[in-house]
Amino acid sequence: MSSPHPLSPAPPLLCAVHFKPTDKRVEVPTGTLLSDAAQQAGIDLQLPCGGQGRCGRCAVIIEEGSVQRRSTQRLSPADVEAGYALACQTTVEGDLVVSIPPQEKIERRLKESKRAAKVELPFPYDIHDQPLRKYTITLDSPSMQDQTDDWARLCRALERRYNLEGLRIQLAVLKKLGRVLREGEWTVTVVVELDAWDRPDGPPCIIDIMPGEHLENLWAVAIDIGTTSNHVWLVDLISGEVMAQKADYNGQIARGEDVISRIIYASKGNGLEELQQLVMGTLNRLLEEAAQEHAISTDEIYKAVVAGNSTMIHLFAGIPPDTIRLMPFITTVNELPPLRAHAVGLNINPVGRVDCLPGVASYVGADITAGVVSSEMCKAGALSLFVDIGTNGEMALGDCTWLISCACSAGPAFEGAGVVHGMRATAGAIEEVWIDPETYEATYRVIGNEKPRGICGSGLISLLAEMFVAGVIDKSGNIDLGLETRVSRVREGGHGAEYVIAWADESATGEDIVITAVDIDNLMRAKAAIYAGFSILARSVGLSLADAEQVLIGGAFGQYINVENAIQIGLLPDKPFESFHFLGNTSVRGAYMALISREMREHVKQVSEMMTYLELSVDNTFFDEFNAAMFLPHTDESLFPSLKAKEEQ
Amino acid sequence: MSSPHPLSPAPPLLCAVHFKPTDKRVEVPTGTLLSDAAQQAGIDLQLPCGGQGRCGRCAVIIEEGSVQRRSTQRLSPADVEAGYALACQTTVEGDLVVSIPPQEKIERRLKESKRAAKVELPFPYDIHDQPLRKYTITLDSPSMQDQTDDWARLCRALERRYNLEGLRIQLAVLKKLGRVLREGEWTVTVVVELDAWDRPDGPPCIIDIMPGEHLENLWAVAIDIGTTSNHVWLVDLISGEVMAQKADYNGQIARGEDVISRIIYASKGNGLEELQQLVMGTLNRLLEEAAQEHAISTDEIYKAVVAGNSTMIHLFAGIPPDTIRLMPFITTVNELPPLRAHAVGLNINPVGRVDCLPGVASYVGADITAGVVSSEMCKAGALSLFVDIGTNGEMALGDCTWLISCACSAGPAFEGAGVVHGMRATAGAIEEVWIDPETYEATYRVIGNEKPRGICGSGLISLLAEMFVAGVIDKSGNIDLGLETRVSRVREGGHGAEYVIAWADESATGEDIVITAVDIDNLMRAKAAIYAGFSILARSVGLSLADAEQVLIGGAFGQYINVENAIQIGLLPDKPFESFHFLGNTSVRGAYMALISREMREHVKQVSEMMTYLELSVDNTFFDEFNAAMFLPHTDESLFPSLKAKEEQ
Repeated sequence: MSSPHPLSPAPPLLCAVHFKPTDKRVEVPTGTLLSDAAQQAGIDLQLPCGGQGRCGRCAVIIEEGSVQRRSTQRLSPADVEAGYALACQTTVEGDLVVSIPPQEKIERRLKESKRAAKVELPFPYDIHDQPLRKYTITLDSPSMQDQTDDWARLCRALERRYNLEGLRIQLAVLKKLGRVLREGEWTVTVVVELDAWDRPDGPPCIIDIMPGEHLENLWAVAIDIGTTSNHVWLVDLISGEVMAQKADYNGQIARGEDVISRIIYASKGNGLEELQQLVMGTLNRLLEEAAQEHAISTDEIYKAVVAGNSTMIHLFAGIPPDTIRLMPFITTVNELPPLRAHAVGLNINPVGRVDCLPGVASYVGADITAGVVSSEMCKAGALSLFVDIGTNGEMALGDCTWLISCACSAGPAFEGAGVVHGMRATAGAIEEVWIDPETYEATYRVIGNEKPRGICGSGLISLLAEMFVAGVIDKSGNIDLGLETRVSRVREGGHGAEYVIAWADESATGEDIVITAVDIDNLMRAKAAIYAGFSILARSVGLSLADAEQVLIGGAFGQYINVENAIQIGLLPDKPFESFHFLGNTSVRGAYMALISREMREHVKQVSEMMTYLELSVDNTFFDEFNAAMFLPHTDESLFPSLKAKEEQ
Repeated sequence: MSSPHPLSPAPPLLCAVHFKPTDKRVEVPTGTLLSDAAQQAGIDLQLPCGGQGRCGRCAVIIEEGSVQRRSTQRLSPADVEAGYALACQTTVEGDLVVSIPPQEKIERRLKESKRAAKVELPFPYDIHDQPLRKYTITLDSPSMQDQTDDWARLCRALERRYNLEGLRIQLAVLKKLGRVLREGEWTVTVVVELDAWDRPDGPPCIIDIMPGEHLENLWAVAIDIGTTSNHVWLVDLISGEVMAQKADYNGQIARGEDVISRIIYASKGNGLEELQQLVMGTLNRLLEEAAQEHAISTDEIYKAVVAGNSTMIHLFAGIPPDTIRLMPFITTVNELPPLRAHAVGLNINPVGRVDCLPGVASYVGADITAGVVSSEMCKAGALSLFVDIGTNGEMALGDCTWLISCACSAGPAFEGAGVVHGMRATAGAIEEVWIDPETYEATYRVIGNEKPRGICGSGLISLLAEMFVAGVIDKSGNIDLGLETRVSRVREGGHGAEYVIAWADESATGEDIVITAVDIDNLMRAKAAIYAGFSILARSVGLSLADAEQVLIGGAFGQYINVENAIQIGLLPDKPFESFHFLGNTSVRGAYMALISREMREHVKQVSEMMTYLELSVDNTFFDEFNAAMFLPHTDESLFPSLKAKEEQ
């Protein structure tokens, strides 16, 4: 064999790739996609997204050797650290040993990430940073010579041993004090709030007592009351860790899907009491589930910190929210005084304190102050845009020194409501869709890898983007019925034109899963309202969206948005991928931070006080901005240069 | 006619006595009893006590001229000032014009004194001496330019106008805040507690709000919870005056007559809840009656100060009292924290504060600390003996610088219970008895001048004394059945020997009203227990009862004791009449003083802290003292020199 011509390209080096656990081997040139190498080795990797690196189904583990990852979109830094690579996005750069995890492991990983991952401590925790304590104490027993009453005796001992001065006690504790002291043979454990109702330095108040020594844990709870979903994080204040996370739909949904319809419902008959009971029913069920997970009684939960929008907080406390809806849109109260749980019917210890975090205005509530704090945008120094996309889109713009906020009614479309086959992001929900631009055929990924039952918010964004990119809909969101003759997925349905995502025989319900023209209009309105909010917020302080260095996305839903898709439909501003940070439920996380740290609780208050509120409903540029955003991605295409560039490629 | 012999006694001067309104005239010598003069004039004055100056039925008004009053026992200083004299105790000393009031006027006066007389302000009242306030305020109305929430808006206005800083608010008020502000078109009246739960200097807390200006009154209530009777004084804190007084039996009586039987009842099943509801039922009915008298709602009553013995306070608050009964006799709490009315079910404004005054020990409760304060014994400087005779006899000895107290179980005999025909001091109760020492016939006075239905505490003391003095019973209290053959009023009855006070045809019940040997034994035990308490208290500090300069008698019952009778039976120590001061219900009066004055509230606390408590049940001299006092008046007759002297007259 002759030596190769020195000027001809060097033949690519062959690399030996060894696939485990099936023990299949193949030799491929460097630069070969791992998915191709696997195919050559006779391994059938699933590529439902068509090898675009977007579904995460082809994840493999690089055990030995060198690869190059083009995209890690579906992988966490920890995944990459552990050797995970997406086969469709990774090239072979040398001899490799590659492990193909069982499909169910990948599914589990994808599913787990939908479920509550373990919450890391947001900062080093010190029990002394928060005001709830447990103390065990042994008292001198009474005698004819020392007839001090039980309560004074307990005070005396706690003052001597723990320096607790001016102690107070709840009536409920007094009622069992005599029995518990004697049952414990004068050794008891007390639960003490060190801060008073209105000042951090006491006097301390005893809110529970039990016989003997019980210092093993100290339970509290962080709560987020969303218009659509409620979240409960059970926290052990000994370690500061989140020990259980529970979530469910807000039971009020049956009485109206958005805050306005709830407010109207609350103003009629005993609607207010009913709505309060409904949300309390949901929260109490979640509390019960969390308590059961640790085999404790809910009475052992001694404190709740609650975040939520202003309407939700009013309804939670049983305060009529009607003025929130009426010009000039005034809340009764932005910062509730601390309450005792029994006063609202929250099923933690009846005298446990319920601390509702402060909000800013009727439509920028404690969910946003908590969210801003947990997003750490105040710490960043850089100009940040924070957005929590739920039933309302609430957003804040600013840095450490100033903050401005507004809210726009997005409607519940992104939460899976107001859309014919919409559903929440739980098992059976289509969470991502791919449409073949040639055939208009849809493939999708379903949470839990089940048969699909419906489509959730992130699925809808993905669907809208794919439909737009593939040409199923035009810039105005109109379904191209001209496709009808060629593509059976496009048709006239009961609600106007519709596109079939999943056929009846694929679905869990036995019905076609479709998206209708009305659904698309709802989605367009939602995304337009949010983008209009961004624009006005920036312009109101003389800036443009381009000035924002990072976009912090809160909300359980926001966590699963495909940024590329969201930019494609003009929901999120056109920025590099690394500018976006998905923070999950920042509201419950903010409540959690305020629960475990006095400093963070104070920080939420500071944010609520420093944040300027812009009322969009009277902003005369809002409808212009809204209408401009009622296109895909936007009337002003110059705002989305990356899409333009891609189109021109 | 010859002139009189110069050495013969000068004939007494004749005085002209003109009786009005019958216009009868008579001339009598100076020194003639007015009752005799009336008889000579053909006027039939009633003298049911046989002219002993004890029944008050022969009261007349001296309009002109000079008289000498031997006794004014049944007259108040105001009566004497107004010219009243007891005809049987008053001698003619010159020409007179005497008005004989209609009998019904005398009856009314005697009856009224049984009813609640107007309570005088105990000291000059200044509304600023107590911490409840009403303020009227007009707020700037909200606008799109000023979207401050309602609560912050109210705070801002109250801080500017009234310097109220760090304001707090009750959830119940927040619930109506939005509506009331708008109903009042931004002018509202707020009710504010200036003192915090635990300190006098705030922060202030809004406990009610109403549209418009309503400064005309500010209602509060002083409450005494006796084992037998409950008392409610409705107070207007604008003037500080008692506007209504209501009293009734404690509804708990049906579940046991003394504290011990109540404690036992409370320890079984839901006995505690039942007893709490029973007393609350009584109090709430009295509150309702008082409110109706002024056409107000009980929700307009914003504060309650409560006195009562330790068991009553425990039951009122729903705290198990069982340790009070068991060695070493420990209360759960001597000083309750302030409560909100809804927490105990007291029917004033649900968030109105309920301040239970502090007690000293299991058997010296807040009724005694309140009583000591209202008796002003601490102010006297002189050594004083304070006693509150109710179901228990509680007493304190001391001066400004020290106080020692004890309690003895007198049983409910003096409250009309535990005695076959005993009843409370209401209409139809025999309140005083006279027995003719010759015929053993009884005459009596009935409250309300009705037919008798039974006999109340003061009547029982009077009866016991008269029976003893007349010889119906001996020193040991045994009925002399030897009289049976001569006197039909003495007989063997169903409960052993008995004496008939009123025959069936005189009584309202159609039955003979009798006192039995068992009743007498109960009365003897009660009086012996109390006297033993006095003796031990004095001896414990190295003094004798003779050293006490004044005896302050509290308790609604104490008010009507005939001192002479009470000394005759050895219930009260043998002292001059002027040493005794009858103060009425010192417990409710102390609660009233604490309600209208911060200083007095503080004083009650000081008394509770400085008062030493002597536990009689473990005093090994108690039974000796008790047995020594189980005679009439006492085994040691030298303790009752005045009786000895009278006997020897």
